Amino acid sequence: MSSTPSTGKIEPKYIAWKDVEREKLNPLIEREMITGQEIMVARVFIKKGGHVPLHHHHNEQFTYILEGALKFAIDGKEIVVRAGEVLSIPSNVPHEAWGLEDTLDLDVFTPPRADWLAKTDDYLRHGR
Amino acid sequence: MSSTPSTGKIEPKYIAWKDVEREKLNPLIEREMITGQEIMVARVFIKKGGHVPLHHHHNEQFTYILEGALKFAIDGKEIVVRAGEVLSIPSNVPHEAWGLEDTLDLDVFTPPRADWLAKTDDYLRHGR
Repeated sequence: MSSTPSTGKIEPKYIAWKDVEREKLNPLIEREMITGQEIMVARVFIKKGGHVPLHHHHNEQFTYILEGALKFAIDGKEIVVRAGEVLSIPSNVPHEAWGLEDTLDLDVFTPPRADWLAKTDDYLRHGR
Repeated sequence: MSSTPSTGKIEPKYIAWKDVEREKLNPLIEREMITGQEIMVARVFIKKGGHVPLHHHHNEQFTYILEGALKFAIDGKEIVVRAGEVLSIPSNVPHEAWGLEDTLDLDVFTPPRADWLAKTDDYLRHGR
């Protein structure tokens, strides 16, 4: 499985999450990601007390909480997003998040997060 | 909640799946969708024996099976995608699917499926 688009024919890809590399970004946040041409999906595991510092990006984001709960600060509001709920984050809107419980968060981006692929996402790697 | 981008400032949206309209497309397939600017996510409920006829679209697609299993025919191959597994379907690649079990399939598209929003997706509405 390549996470970088090739220059040849673009093939369908079949991937089990259990075979995707799990990156440990800090003691409370781990991540797995799968990348296509214009879509990236990521499973982000945020333990209770984990903190995603305030940041923004041009990539449009959907956050779908599969398990647990995150509190977001976004657009001057605090929003708790629980299992079965979705937060749509437009391009360039600053946001910050805290794990209220051990959480499995499915993040969807377009385009893919170049900083995540290049591992230049320092804002996530210096958390608690 | 609007599924159509407005012309004003693009706001974050917080949505619980339980509050999203569930469309019954045919006796074996139901669907819920949430649409942003360039991302659409949809929960597709396909009962065992449900059939998604061969079709293609310019929209890039990721299919993440949350529960159950679908068999796909794509690119000259048959691929069974089970809970915890993902199929990445590039733009314009024809694909067909069958429910092997009662299945909850999370579909991600970019751009959003205009045919789904306009309810002109007749290929899904005449299934068994």
